[in-house]
Amino acid sequence: MKKIEHVGIAVKSLEDSNDLFSKLLGKPHYKTEMVTSEGVNTSFFQVGENKIELLEATRNDSPIAKFIDKKGEGVHHIAFDVDDIYAEVERLKKEGFSILNETPKRGADNKLVVFLHPKSSNGVLIELCQEIKE
Amino acid sequence: MKKIEHVGIAVKSLEDSNDLFSKLLGKPHYKTEMVTSEGVNTSFFQVGENKIELLEATRNDSPIAKFIDKKGEGVHHIAFDVDDIYAEVERLKKEGFSILNETPKRGADNKLVVFLHPKSSNGVLIELCQEIKE
Repeated sequence: MKKIEHVGIAVKSLEDSNDLFSKLLGKPHYKTEMVTSEGVNTSFFQVGENKIELLEATRNDSPIAKFIDKKGEGVHHIAFDVDDIYAEVERLKKEGFSILNETPKRGADNKLVVFLHPKSSNGVLIELCQEIKE
Repeated sequence: MKKIEHVGIAVKSLEDSNDLFSKLLGKPHYKTEMVTSEGVNTSFFQVGENKIELLEATRNDSPIAKFIDKKGEGVHHIAFDVDDIYAEVERLKKEGFSILNETPKRGADNKLVVFLHPKSSNGVLIELCQEIKE
């Protein structure tokens, strides 16, 4: 794990929260990106080497809609930058972590991503992410 | 805001979670520190330029005990590193954020800290922190 790549925050309205986080962080978001497969619209803010990712559901069965129904707005996941996501998945499986998708999938921001189930990590949804180099 | 200084995670047992996060992050914690005024025992892991701070309550009226009672284990706060915490408090007050302690207080890890109420930041407890230089 190289660094905290980003912290993902579930929000009801991307428009309202873009405004809020622009004020908080003192700078505007640098992009929005729709991840159709997950039913989310995302917005990214750079903070030094790290990012804040805001997540808004685009449909009722989106994981973000379910999260907000259950817990309200708030921190949804912590994403760690890794060099070799396949090797990390193997390592973490051996350590007993519950992997939600063992095969990395394409996420927002040009990344391969894998999620670990929060039940095996103190209630925290953990994302591993690796930049896709093409 | 210079970077995500750390993400704070509320846990029931620092011993169990130290073991868990050592496995997750692939390295041991580098210190523990008691913050008596807050009723918490903390443990820190370095991940690149960022940290993970585990927080365990040391008494029943600790904010961490109350958090876990209400929400269970999980992400408790996001802390941003700032250069001038007094100036940031003034700036954020003008932007309409609700400040929990306008006068910075001494937190763990040799930092002056200020917290923003989660109600003014999408349910996320935000910490500002500045290294104390003596």
